[in-house]
Amino acid sequence: MHVTSEQRLDDGVLEREFTLGEIPGILWTPASAPAPLILLGPPPLGLRKAYPRLATRARHSAAHGFASATIELPGCGDRPRLPGAEQALADLRRAMEAGEPVTDEIIDALILPLVDNAVPEWQAALDALLSLPDIGGPVGYSGGVISIGTRLAVVEPRISAAVLFAGSFVPRAMFEEARRVTIPLHVLLQWDDEGNDRQAALDLFDAFGSTEKALHANMGGHTGVPQYAGEAAGKFLTRHLK
Amino acid sequence: MHVTSEQRLDDGVLEREFTLGEIPGILWTPASAPAPLILLGPPPLGLRKAYPRLATRARHSAAHGFASATIELPGCGDRPRLPGAEQALADLRRAMEAGEPVTDEIIDALILPLVDNAVPEWQAALDALLSLPDIGGPVGYSGGVISIGTRLAVVEPRISAAVLFAGSFVPRAMFEEARRVTIPLHVLLQWDDEGNDRQAALDLFDAFGSTEKALHANMGGHTGVPQYAGEAAGKFLTRHLK
Repeated sequence: MHVTSEQRLDDGVLEREFTLGEIPGILWTPASAPAPLILLGPPPLGLRKAYPRLATRARHSAAHGFASATIELPGCGDRPRLPGAEQALADLRRAMEAGEPVTDEIIDALILPLVDNAVPEWQAALDALLSLPDIGGPVGYSGGVISIGTRLAVVEPRISAAVLFAGSFVPRAMFEEARRVTIPLHVLLQWDDEGNDRQAALDLFDAFGSTEKALHANMGGHTGVPQYAGEAAGKFLTRHLK
Repeated sequence: MHVTSEQRLDDGVLEREFTLGEIPGILWTPASAPAPLILLGPPPLGLRKAYPRLATRARHSAAHGFASATIELPGCGDRPRLPGAEQALADLRRAMEAGEPVTDEIIDALILPLVDNAVPEWQAALDALLSLPDIGGPVGYSGGVISIGTRLAVVEPRISAAVLFAGSFVPRAMFEEARRVTIPLHVLLQWDDEGNDRQAALDLFDAFGSTEKALHANMGGHTGVPQYAGEAAGKFLTRHLK
C-alpha cells in the first residue's frame, strides 16, 4: 500500500489517496486513533464520479469516530475492463431498451466476474489497512454492489456487520451464498428505484441467513436515499462496531 | 371524557384512566405541558392484556416529551362483541387450522366492522383529548390494526404522521383507501410474523400515496419488534411532531 497524496480536510479528517498494486483507493481517518474501519463499497461508476457521495459518507462516519476506505472496483475508472464486460453491458442495454426481461445469463455475465475479481482485492486492502497504526478493529462494510457485499460477508471473517444497498442485479447463485451470511445486516432499498428489481431485492433479503437483519425501504430513486435513512444505517454500524 | 383514576408513575408520568361514554381509555402525560399527542392504537386483545406493552411505549414517548392515549377497540376487552365477529373469528380459526387460505370474505367480516366502528370513536377521543390543557398539537398515530390506522390517516386531518404495524389481515378495500393517504408513514413489518401475510403487507406499503413513507422490516415474530426498531419509529414521530 503506497500513499500517493494526503490532505487534511476542514473538519480535521485526514484524506489519503493510495495505490494497492495497480488499484487506486482512498482512506479517510478521524483525528481519534486507532479507529474502527468501514469499508465503503463504491457503485460501479469509477471512484472519480462516486467521490462526492463517498467522501460525504466518510466524513459523516469520521464524525462518529470511524475510519473509512474504498478502492476502485475491477473494470471501473481507469482500470482495465473485465473480459466480457462490454458485451454484457451491451446486451443489458439492448434488453432494457427493447423492454425485454434481463436474462439470468446477462446478469451472470455482468456481475459474477465483478464479484470474483473484487472480493480478493477487498481482502488484500483489508490486510493493508489493518496494518496501519491509525486503524483498529472491528471492521464493517457499507456498500454499493450488493453481490460483492454478500460474498465478502460470507468469506471474510474480519467483517462484523454490513450495510448493503439493494439496487443492482443479483445473479441466481448469490441467493445460495446469501443463506450462508450470518453477520448482522442492514439493507437499504429504494422502493421506486427505476433500474432495480424490487422483488429480487426482497427475495435476497429473505435469503440472508443472519438472525439480525433489517430492511429499510424508502421512497425515491437510486441515489435518493433520505438523510434520516443514512443516519439509521450509521446507527446500525455504531451499534455493532463500537 | 371522565377521568376514573389517576396515578403518578415513578418516572413522573401522569397516568389517567378515563371513560368516553362507554369506552374505557388511558392517557399518559409527561411533566412538560402542553405536549404533542400520540394516539396509541392497541392490538385487538383488550386493553388489560395490552397494557404492559402500551404503557412501556407511552413512558418511552413521555421521556421524549409526548403525551400518549389509547382507547379500547370495539368488541374488545369488556365491550360488547360486534355483530358477526364471533362467526368471522370461528371461520378464520377453521381455515387456519385446516391450512386453507383465509378468504377475502372472512377478512372483510373480521376487519371492516372493526374499522367502521373504531374510527369515529378515535375521532371523538381526539376531540376530547385536544380540549385538555396539557395536550397540544400536533397529533401522531402509532398502532396496531393497520386498517384502522390507514382509515384514520385518510379521514382525520388532525393526524400529521403515523407509525403503522403490518401484521393484521387487510381487506381488499383498504388498498384503495391506502392510495388516498398522504401523511408521512413509518411502517414496521416483522418479517417472520407467523400469522402475517407478508405479501399483503408489502402490497399495502406500495399502495400508500404518501411521498414520505418508510418500511422497516425486522426479524422475529409478531411481538418481537427489536428495541432499535422502536427507537427508529420514535425518531420518526419526533421528526414530524416536534
